[in-house]
Amino acid sequence: MQPKTSTRTECPAARALETVGEWWSILILRDAFQGMTRFDEFQQSLGIAPNILSRRLAHLTASGMFVRSRYRERPPRYEYLLTEKGRDFFPVLVALFAWGNKHLAPKGESIVLANRQDMRPLEPSLVDAVGLHPITPANAVLIPGPRASRGMRERLASLRAMNPATSPPPG
Amino acid sequence: MQPKTSTRTECPAARALETVGEWWSILILRDAFQGMTRFDEFQQSLGIAPNILSRRLAHLTASGMFVRSRYRERPPRYEYLLTEKGRDFFPVLVALFAWGNKHLAPKGESIVLANRQDMRPLEPSLVDAVGLHPITPANAVLIPGPRASRGMRERLASLRAMNPATSPPPG
Repeated sequence: MQPKTSTRTECPAARALETVGEWWSILILRDAFQGMTRFDEFQQSLGIAPNILSRRLAHLTASGMFVRSRYRERPPRYEYLLTEKGRDFFPVLVALFAWGNKHLAPKGESIVLANRQDMRPLEPSLVDAVGLHPITPANAVLIPGPRASRGMRERLASLRAMNPATSPPPG
Repeated sequence: MQPKTSTRTECPAARALETVGEWWSILILRDAFQGMTRFDEFQQSLGIAPNILSRRLAHLTASGMFVRSRYRERPPRYEYLLTEKGRDFFPVLVALFAWGNKHLAPKGESIVLANRQDMRPLEPSLVDAVGLHPITPANAVLIPGPRASRGMRERLASLRAMNPATSPPPG
């Protein structure tokens, strides 16, 4: 019924979204990057129903973003610590944050991302680690990787044909 | 009932998520960055029900990510073109893509982001535009902006107290 499903699940961005789960998960991760580790802290910060928070924390633990660690024996209490996989999600949050500040705060910013040492505001930019040039829709293209299926190769070839190398995005 | 709601809506990442709407919207934007503009193209790519796709495209147009433009008079047909606001979402997608390729493709990548000119794979890195140093959880901090509410200032102060400047994330 959905012939494109297999190529869709090959897309790492789609798989990333499926892994994280939903909006709440991203806000939980955001709070974890600000140092929160405990159920009560997340709940107070997010104003989220306890059963939803439990489910989201279990999902993020099962998908390897958090490890659960007991910090008290009686009664047993756990905290949720970001794994390397979880910490690597940081650029996604910073990119969302920067976009929100640019386009959704017309009267000025409520929160600013700053350098911890000198409190200077940071200006996030996504660059190629080699050469440090910004990555843009105009200079980036998707190509098949070593594990691309035949369907994915065909899809990427037809996308490239539709979207010639030199044309910048419209608008 | 949810005392933190006002500070939550001040967070640009949370507002970004609310604006975009849901997973489908992000996948529609992903396809738009690959050159798709028309209803049928999105539908074929995503295997999405037409009524859901209609709703998502209307939402993305209403929120200023797309402009709708008529490309045929009889019968009327429209295409969806990314606005500047929509194009600025590109780093979020690249960050999701890079995270997915790093953590969710253990047997190798199906799709690779490459430089359009020489097809060399790109290695996305999020840096500060001034100085080009990577932005990490350890060197970045959230501070109140000019429009921060009192609640937000208190929240950020208590987060900084919880998460001393020099401690790297655990794990």
